[in-house]
Amino acid sequence: MSDPADIPKAVVLLSGGLDSTTTLAVAGDEGFACHALSFDYGQRHRFELTAAARVAHSLQAVSHRVVRLDLSAQAGFGHSALTDAIAVPKDRGEDLAGEIPVTYVPARNTIFLSIALGYAEVIGAFDIFIGVNAVDYSGYPDCRGEFIQAFERMANLAVAAAVDQRGRFTIHAPLIELSKAEIIRRGLALGVDYSLTHSCYDPDPTGRPCGHCDSCRLRLAGFRDAGSADPLEYPST
Amino acid sequence: MSDPADIPKAVVLLSGGLDSTTTLAVAGDEGFACHALSFDYGQRHRFELTAAARVAHSLQAVSHRVVRLDLSAQAGFGHSALTDAIAVPKDRGEDLAGEIPVTYVPARNTIFLSIALGYAEVIGAFDIFIGVNAVDYSGYPDCRGEFIQAFERMANLAVAAAVDQRGRFTIHAPLIELSKAEIIRRGLALGVDYSLTHSCYDPDPTGRPCGHCDSCRLRLAGFRDAGSADPLEYPST
Repeated sequence: MSDPADIPKAVVLLSGGLDSTTTLAVAGDEGFACHALSFDYGQRHRFELTAAARVAHSLQAVSHRVVRLDLSAQAGFGHSALTDAIAVPKDRGEDLAGEIPVTYVPARNTIFLSIALGYAEVIGAFDIFIGVNAVDYSGYPDCRGEFIQAFERMANLAVAAAVDQRGRFTIHAPLIELSKAEIIRRGLALGVDYSLTHSCYDPDPTGRPCGHCDSCRLRLAGFRDAGSADPLEYPST
Repeated sequence: MSDPADIPKAVVLLSGGLDSTTTLAVAGDEGFACHALSFDYGQRHRFELTAAARVAHSLQAVSHRVVRLDLSAQAGFGHSALTDAIAVPKDRGEDLAGEIPVTYVPARNTIFLSIALGYAEVIGAFDIFIGVNAVDYSGYPDCRGEFIQAFERMANLAVAAAVDQRGRFTIHAPLIELSKAEIIRRGLALGVDYSLTHSCYDPDPTGRPCGHCDSCRLRLAGFRDAGSADPLEYPST
């Protein structure tokens, strides 16, 4: 781990899932010194934070920081199956990209990108990577290209380092036009070890994925379409 | 304190300072049921949070919530005289609206508005009030109208409640074109008790304002220009 002055820095949002892990690998491959940022936001399980730490280490991130921000129901937020006592939907119909599902967390990517923006300014980075994906996007509005473009435009009006023209912030969403299978192929080509990642919205108490939530189903279909095997162990039923 | 279903809700960012307090009074006067939101973000002193609680009570906010998000140097942020071991400038020259001062907190209004956006969606509000001011704005880029407009545009692409057309988010910045004296006159006309507010960046250990930081000087000049006396007690020197 090093952070030489002549290598541009990037802040990479890292949940520990398949998409953000691939994004970290892409950012490193593009030559950035990667500073990974994860959020302890009151999510119902902690497995993704331990996955994020494993991934950051494996992909040689220069640093990995976990920001605490309570978006749970106890803190007045909640309203999502990921942060509140709402059941995670299982085995939904094929049209996963239809209505916005209950796993949507209000304004999550806006909040995470905003904090990444402040952190980028502090460490002297002008590049922020986020693993959003508009193809298998599960219906989240803040995973679309038009949102990312609007955020980037806003960011360059918000932050001193852009306004006084030291640089221009770029929000990179390298997966946005890829299918899940293309993401997996890209990651495998970059040497990503997907056994380190965690995607399930509703794991068992040991962290084993359920295989039936939207996230598991998109992941399993992605590995299948990529002609590869998911290294994670799923329940047999 | 009541929150009848037929009164539209607003989220009001409330620091406990003069501008945000006036903004809360304006939002209430415009007929909104006001939900005040403050941030415990690792600021060097706590007096503004106690001021925010006094103000929310005095102006009959329906609720007042304090969100914890550590933007201090210990958490990897800092880089501001408000959150880090950097001296607060005193008795700066007349041109306070020149370069961006060291009291600038990276991406602060972006982060606060983003969290307010998520909170608004959770409580069913489509209106967010922020007390930014482009006249006596101390040089902060995220206090300008073009930033607010870009944020509003981004917000309406980010959040499910806007994207599925339940409503449209509006970021209200009712003070943005007012001078400090006009803000004070507006607040006094609405019955604001400015003795409850706290503006100083560098108070003494009892919370008494210094009278010499940018915030104190803008405030004192504002009361003078408004032909009114600041009810706070300042040191005689």
